Amino acid sequence: MQENLSVNQEGHLCVGGADTTTLASRYGTPLYVMDEGRIRQNCRRLKQSIEHFYENGGMVLYASKAFSCKEIYRIVKEEGLGVDVVSGGELYTALAAGFPAEHIYFHGNNKTPAELAMALENHVGHIVADNLYELETLSSLAASSNTVMPVLLRIKPGIDAHTHDFIRTGQIDSKFGFALETGEAEEAFKKALSLPGIQLTGIHCHIGSQIFDIEPFEHAAQVMLQFAQDMYRRSGFMIQELNLGGGFGICYLPSDDPTALEKYMERVAEVVKRFCEDKAIPIPHICIEPGRSIVGDAGVTLYTVGTVKQIPGIRTYVSVDGGMTDNPRYILYGSDYEIVCANKADQTKDSIVTVAGRCCESGDLLQENTPLQQTAPGDILAVLCTGAYNYSMASNYNRVPRPAVVMVKDGVDRLIVRRESYDDLLRNDI
Amino acid sequence: MQENLSVNQEGHLCVGGADTTTLASRYGTPLYVMDEGRIRQNCRRLKQSIEHFYENGGMVLYASKAFSCKEIYRIVKEEGLGVDVVSGGELYTALAAGFPAEHIYFHGNNKTPAELAMALENHVGHIVADNLYELETLSSLAASSNTVMPVLLRIKPGIDAHTHDFIRTGQIDSKFGFALETGEAEEAFKKALSLPGIQLTGIHCHIGSQIFDIEPFEHAAQVMLQFAQDMYRRSGFMIQELNLGGGFGICYLPSDDPTALEKYMERVAEVVKRFCEDKAIPIPHICIEPGRSIVGDAGVTLYTVGTVKQIPGIRTYVSVDGGMTDNPRYILYGSDYEIVCANKADQTKDSIVTVAGRCCESGDLLQENTPLQQTAPGDILAVLCTGAYNYSMASNYNRVPRPAVVMVKDGVDRLIVRRESYDDLLRNDI
Repeated sequence: MQENLSVNQEGHLCVGGADTTTLASRYGTPLYVMDEGRIRQNCRRLKQSIEHFYENGGMVLYASKAFSCKEIYRIVKEEGLGVDVVSGGELYTALAAGFPAEHIYFHGNNKTPAELAMALENHVGHIVADNLYELETLSSLAASSNTVMPVLLRIKPGIDAHTHDFIRTGQIDSKFGFALETGEAEEAFKKALSLPGIQLTGIHCHIGSQIFDIEPFEHAAQVMLQFAQDMYRRSGFMIQELNLGGGFGICYLPSDDPTALEKYMERVAEVVKRFCEDKAIPIPHICIEPGRSIVGDAGVTLYTVGTVKQIPGIRTYVSVDGGMTDNPRYILYGSDYEIVCANKADQTKDSIVTVAGRCCESGDLLQENTPLQQTAPGDILAVLCTGAYNYSMASNYNRVPRPAVVMVKDGVDRLIVRRESYDDLLRNDI
Repeated sequence: MQENLSVNQEGHLCVGGADTTTLASRYGTPLYVMDEGRIRQNCRRLKQSIEHFYENGGMVLYASKAFSCKEIYRIVKEEGLGVDVVSGGELYTALAAGFPAEHIYFHGNNKTPAELAMALENHVGHIVADNLYELETLSSLAASSNTVMPVLLRIKPGIDAHTHDFIRTGQIDSKFGFALETGEAEEAFKKALSLPGIQLTGIHCHIGSQIFDIEPFEHAAQVMLQFAQDMYRRSGFMIQELNLGGGFGICYLPSDDPTALEKYMERVAEVVKRFCEDKAIPIPHICIEPGRSIVGDAGVTLYTVGTVKQIPGIRTYVSVDGGMTDNPRYILYGSDYEIVCANKADQTKDSIVTVAGRCCESGDLLQENTPLQQTAPGDILAVLCTGAYNYSMASNYNRVPRPAVVMVKDGVDRLIVRRESYDDLLRNDI
């Protein structure tokens, strides 16, 4: 069990020192619980290692699509991180939380002209440009408002990281970014240097998500630096900034064995430093964009068991009061999760069950054939490691209101997102 | 092209007589457009055929999980349909729209005690009970409030309809309902007859979704009636109501060839009447629960093209300003859709493209390798047949606000669900 989780004398699962069964009865279920201590620890591990391995500086940008609400921007701001946002909505949230615009990077394969204008008006630090049309639109918007926008170019390094098809983004067949192989990246580089209103500062790549190996990251860094050097030779412009994206795998199951963040940082830093030394080019400022590795293992979702259905010879369904509406990752990707009966956490997991959600959809499951303590209606189930891409992907399917989010810190809890009410669901209905 | 769609003299796609490009500029994109004429026509086809083939009466219940907002409950009420709801949220919405409680059926594999109490307080017409624990909870809640709740039992008829795994629900290995084979259904039947506060009125089944064949429906009707007759012999109680659920396939692509609703109704009615005649039992009141076949082909989603990315030798990505947030069915099920360039609907579809959404996720696609007119940024794309399970499954992933819904009727448009604002997204953030 990960270090911020524990079992107290009553046999209850605790997160960040708080008894989850107390949280369930105080706030109701389903309930997202986030551990502030763990979030801050993850931020610090990343920040310290980037500072340690890149003496010339680097920056950790929290990829806020993993979990976006006002409070998370306040926390990562206090930790001295930047953020990346992928929409006007994330940008709006970050700004509403008082996040400094100059430390925001704006991503996306299809930013609308309205979003680009919003970024300009608010003096967002960088836009990560995805395509030529965006560069042109941004240039004319910036020029007409007499501003200059620092821009990175999103490059596809052609890396095919071995991960789920849905979350693999570095290969040429992707909706994201400029391809190297076709000459498109070079065209974009030259265009960005020549267009008014745009100040090219660097290049960006992102090779995928939940990657356990270091090699694809090393390879990507190498390919990106080679491109930077090629462009330096051909255009005379050396990038100041290399943004290597995110995608570091985290531990969803006890059997998962991702590379430690520090090891990743060390190995990639070696590649970067060696390349720059060999080619006698300055080491660029390095950015990374972790999302899952900051919030993923800080989250736990609590549910109440409604019914246990034993189908002899087939399986046992344990139905809970949430499901694909608050955690669509199992139906989307078949993602693995560890589940614990929170009020019986000291008991042995001696049954194998399928945990089902409450939606009118057979695929609404949270996990199939997973070990669990013997459970009965009224028990509280805790699904671990749900801090990333759960709240942020939640829906109101079946008109199920989205759960509250509670932050715990050293055993003390506070509400950070209120539970949706039925009236919230009807707010825009006419 | 389906009859409520047309192309006007300017070459623009029209839905229910309204020019979609006008709607896009009036309301912005992404935009859900629903055709009231088509919805009412679908309601009438179903209602008329159930009245035609079941002389002793029957009822069409709109499965509102397909598309739930206040206006749809008003429309199906005017058409004389009942509705099924699967959560407190859907029930709340139906009641808020003035839908008569007595014509509401409350479904779900895990209704919470609070939802059961809500159904009792509001005198919902029927609860479709899923499991023994629910029967007991309902009984004690009803008895303690001195009410009697009419109840149907959800039975798994053991039918394995050939459809997507996620939406296959009639087989024994399902989280829904009582299994016949194990004796559980019989136990539930007897329990429902004996428990206070519960008035058993009938049985229910639902074998899956988007089913094109008639045979599974005929088979299910047969199995359900056999169970009813068995229970009649053993308990002396003959059901008054047989609810055969929904799941009728609709036409997503021009090549789809689902059975006409009337044909389904005729063939199943024959099975029901023959069985009852053979066994000399009264024909029960028949309910069906179509959702997709009422709203599916009445909906079109409009998007603006943001960028067109040609990757030579690989594919062309056309990125739009929506995607998995407003239509998660492609990433969930790989669902087929027909896409038309709304402002060039009179032109030949002479390109093959992949239509991508705007989310930071490679899997955020609306369709791969689909025929389309030559498109450029600023064009309006219309994804057809998006009336079911699009708005209802929408999320705010990437903090993308959910689109507005516009209803058109005979060429006149009106807003029925307002577009979410950025402030809406922050409403519950602390």
